[in-house]
Amino acid sequence: MDDQTYTVNGFKAAAMNAGLRKGDGADLALIFSDRPATAAGVFTTNQVKAAPVLWTRQHLAGGKARAIVANAGNANACTGAPGLKDAGLTAEKTAAVLGIDPAEVMVASTGVIGARLDMERICAALPALARTLSPEGIPEAARAIMTTDSFPKMSTFDGRADGRPYRILGLAKGAGMIMPHMATMLCFILSDIAMSADALQQALMPSVEATFNRITVDGDTSTNDMVLITANGAAQNNALSKGDLKAFQGGLKGVLWELSRMIVKDGEGATKLVDVKIQNAHTPREAAVAARTVANSSLVKTAFYGQDPNWGRILAALGRSGIHMAESRVDIYVDDVQIVSGGLGLGAQAEKQAAVRMKGPEFALIIDLNNGTYGDYVLTCDLTHEYVSINADYRT
Amino acid sequence: MDDQTYTVNGFKAAAMNAGLRKGDGADLALIFSDRPATAAGVFTTNQVKAAPVLWTRQHLAGGKARAIVANAGNANACTGAPGLKDAGLTAEKTAAVLGIDPAEVMVASTGVIGARLDMERICAALPALARTLSPEGIPEAARAIMTTDSFPKMSTFDGRADGRPYRILGLAKGAGMIMPHMATMLCFILSDIAMSADALQQALMPSVEATFNRITVDGDTSTNDMVLITANGAAQNNALSKGDLKAFQGGLKGVLWELSRMIVKDGEGATKLVDVKIQNAHTPREAAVAARTVANSSLVKTAFYGQDPNWGRILAALGRSGIHMAESRVDIYVDDVQIVSGGLGLGAQAEKQAAVRMKGPEFALIIDLNNGTYGDYVLTCDLTHEYVSINADYRT
Repeated sequence: MDDQTYTVNGFKAAAMNAGLRKGDGADLALIFSDRPATAAGVFTTNQVKAAPVLWTRQHLAGGKARAIVANAGNANACTGAPGLKDAGLTAEKTAAVLGIDPAEVMVASTGVIGARLDMERICAALPALARTLSPEGIPEAARAIMTTDSFPKMSTFDGRADGRPYRILGLAKGAGMIMPHMATMLCFILSDIAMSADALQQALMPSVEATFNRITVDGDTSTNDMVLITANGAAQNNALSKGDLKAFQGGLKGVLWELSRMIVKDGEGATKLVDVKIQNAHTPREAAVAARTVANSSLVKTAFYGQDPNWGRILAALGRSGIHMAESRVDIYVDDVQIVSGGLGLGAQAEKQAAVRMKGPEFALIIDLNNGTYGDYVLTCDLTHEYVSINADYRT
Repeated sequence: MDDQTYTVNGFKAAAMNAGLRKGDGADLALIFSDRPATAAGVFTTNQVKAAPVLWTRQHLAGGKARAIVANAGNANACTGAPGLKDAGLTAEKTAAVLGIDPAEVMVASTGVIGARLDMERICAALPALARTLSPEGIPEAARAIMTTDSFPKMSTFDGRADGRPYRILGLAKGAGMIMPHMATMLCFILSDIAMSADALQQALMPSVEATFNRITVDGDTSTNDMVLITANGAAQNNALSKGDLKAFQGGLKGVLWELSRMIVKDGEGATKLVDVKIQNAHTPREAAVAARTVANSSLVKTAFYGQDPNWGRILAALGRSGIHMAESRVDIYVDDVQIVSGGLGLGAQAEKQAAVRMKGPEFALIIDLNNGTYGDYVLTCDLTHEYVSINADYRT
């Protein structure tokens, strides 16, 4: 899909370099709906919440939004009361140039923690940004919010509701500080469907749970995570049937799933995308805990990097996860190749075949605990030299 | 301290190359008390326990031991019933060459998980190993149990009990799969004091809790961890006074503390030893959770490597740890340099000074939550390119 396809009826976007970080790339993005829109969101579960998270969460209570203003280079996190004021001022200035209510502006930030936003530069940039708004501007906005990301992340779904065609478009950024059980860094979902804020929120929650809350890059949770969804009704559909709602939710989940996979694939330094699947756990919670413990183990992740089916490390991670398990019942597969049966290795030949699967950029690690009936999964990536390089040098 | 000093009355040791791993280095160690000795131990909390852990834990119930046989190159973990039989056979053959009861032999293994021990080679090596036992053999034994360790780890304490001099000598190995809340990889403590097995166990538990259970290299818990202590009474002391017991426990804790620090210092790929200290947490448990979460964060550990006082990552880790905290009360120091006050950064000058402290091989990260009265600490290390290299290549 080339950039031309990333449009949604009634939405415009723009991006520019406002001087908020080093380099010539865009670092400030604006998305605008030419008509009133409903909105909902999911925010980081980190107790340390960035100012834009606090601001946007509060104003989203009204269920309405018309604009998203997002900057890279600075997370506006751990900035106290002055940071919260900066987030509010960003919304006010954006509202002024667009001629809308500040409460309809959602603010998002990503970048370095602990530094104040350069409000002078942001305020100076906003009028020009508003002037360049265009229906084709969304890919530029997706690029502007990238930090350590190596490619912009967009996904669309085209559906019909009440007989009328509509689109869901998602854009996301994120490559580090990524870990299940919160919305990930930043994700904006735009749709021209007509749908209430409550219905949006109800569609969003299970979709986030099944997608962004099932990925990890490094086990660290950001202070700035947010997933926002806004729908402007340009599709002109009337009330949605149960079937319409179900189709919308399926489409939304598909968009978030694709974006989630892109984030892990683009995980800092990552060379492999691995789908860790737990089968037949004792409880649903234990299935999730087992998947997360294996997916976050540094030793398992370096073995992925080494293309080494090192199942001893996998069993060791399961053993410390605190779940109910019997070592002698565990089966382990890499894609279709079984390497462990009843807790014992199946030998060099099986491992050799598994290592071949691990040479590819994507594979599944399937762990059957044979100790119940519940399953879960986490998408993860390998831990590489490049991850260390990126994170030892990020600020310096 | 040179190698000559690492002796304890009545203990002999030897090591040799038995062909259990690549290279010419020793990989099989034997430690022997020339008289009956009391013994106690602490074992891994990983649910997946290696065969030697299961065997030794069971036989230690009697509180007596005269020999420790330990191999590197193969962990004898995830080897099922045959592995347990191998551990038993190792004890039997060792007992036979030493003329003691198999129940008095403690077995320990470290190395690759999931492969059977080469019992032919072990059985063939044991007679020669027994013949070369010598009071000066302990440093050789410490070298034989090294895996990814870069130096052998030993520590001694000289005390007096009931007026008679005695020594505590500890030897340990471990560099990866190291994480608080279990005994770490392998640690053997020898003493010539006369003390009951119960008293040894009672002295050992709090010492392990304060030392080995307060270190992490990579957040992964081994299947083979064990700390064994044995005392042979060669010091010929009579009953111990309360003061003697207290002094012994202090000395033991000092030995384990020194060994713990050595293990973190020698953490796989590590270039920095960092003492993460939490002050004024809401509960003792939360102090421990906060210390462990910060000490295990990949982003915090790569920042250590980059000598970057990236306090935003520290606050983000605290925020996801699940403890009670108020961002606006948090103070953070690197050694004596304060970088955060009331949740806000103190600026470039303070960070520059902190970065200078971080250039050294050791520093403290002090986090004052100002939210209660409880403290805790974890020793950790940085996450480096070399860690990834070691663990991507360990088996291949």
